[in-house]
Amino acid sequence: MFEYDKISADDYDRLRGRYEPLTDALRTLVDVGVHTDVDDATVREALVHLEAATALLQQRLREDRPVLRHADTGRPVTWGNPAVGLRNAISPPIVVEHDGDGRCWSEFTLGPVYEGPPGWVHGGVSALVLDQILGEVASDSLSKARFTGTISLRYVRGTPLGPLRAEAFVERTEGAKTFAKGYLMDADGVTVEAEGVFITPAWARDAG
Amino acid sequence: MFEYDKISADDYDRLRGRYEPLTDALRTLVDVGVHTDVDDATVREALVHLEAATALLQQRLREDRPVLRHADTGRPVTWGNPAVGLRNAISPPIVVEHDGDGRCWSEFTLGPVYEGPPGWVHGGVSALVLDQILGEVASDSLSKARFTGTISLRYVRGTPLGPLRAEAFVERTEGAKTFAKGYLMDADGVTVEAEGVFITPAWARDAG
Repeated sequence: MFEYDKISADDYDRLRGRYEPLTDALRTLVDVGVHTDVDDATVREALVHLEAATALLQQRLREDRPVLRHADTGRPVTWGNPAVGLRNAISPPIVVEHDGDGRCWSEFTLGPVYEGPPGWVHGGVSALVLDQILGEVASDSLSKARFTGTISLRYVRGTPLGPLRAEAFVERTEGAKTFAKGYLMDADGVTVEAEGVFITPAWARDAG
Repeated sequence: MFEYDKISADDYDRLRGRYEPLTDALRTLVDVGVHTDVDDATVREALVHLEAATALLQQRLREDRPVLRHADTGRPVTWGNPAVGLRNAISPPIVVEHDGDGRCWSEFTLGPVYEGPPGWVHGGVSALVLDQILGEVASDSLSKARFTGTISLRYVRGTPLGPLRAEAFVERTEGAKTFAKGYLMDADGVTVEAEGVFITPAWARDAG
């Protein structure tokens, strides 16, 4: 069972203003880490700065990582999430839009750190993005507890690195099972199709 | 069609010694970025160091990102890969072992930066790991060009953060299609099952 604390809109914006530039700086560094061609001495010089930054940021760490909900929207604050987390430099991030009509979509850019075969998005990264957006649409914007039961992905063609769009919608619900579908696409159309079954856990079924 | 350059074992080890500590330092920072609870002034102080490190590492960047093959093993050097890349701080990394008998396996740890629901691995991260290991086994340790056609994942139960194992094997090959299967598991057994069909692209079919 999850415990939720609320975070006010003001606190949310204040913390976002504090941490978003940090995550962006880390994303830049992850990218530079893949591409740098400097010599040993320069790497060592950079490491001194990275260790200094780590020491500063480690001065106070969150111990408990409570699950927060935004006081206005009621949606969980998934700051640490590797697909959508604004505090997780692993995430592109994907910002998922909810149109309130049982559909979600997102427009985002995947750069070289998400590359599998040369020039193409790693198939597993496409899966990560689609699992997230299908899960969000299946759980009513994460307002209900739903976990991935199965997900199937069909790679129609290669997904090029660059600007992309993902969409998802709920097909139907049967008891504890929600059936969702979605697509990853570039400017020329669909590159990956996804179908998933999301399950309401037993402990959440009474609550609807 | 890919162009491959060779890298000698000595050069590989030398560059690994240069870049692995950098990637490890960035992994630590990504984790600290999710958990830090310091104030605005301390974040700003850390940002100065991150920007200094970025400027140092950007002094020389690889422009072309050639695909390298290890001169001894013939296997591609997937340093930038988001699942297995030793130069990509997004990767845990997964080190995939090939037993030469059509099987691959890997033991690795997924920490809080890979979290979906509280305490559990993000379903999409499990998909990323399984797509990679199934793709490796289907392509004879990446020695043949094979792309994911379809992949289906069944989440048997939640995958806890911590030490995990993944395994994959080739079930059968039919023309251009290779059918692979695999598992993600914790100490208590299988948490996610995966089945994938990997396709040899038309340009690589004549080469076998």
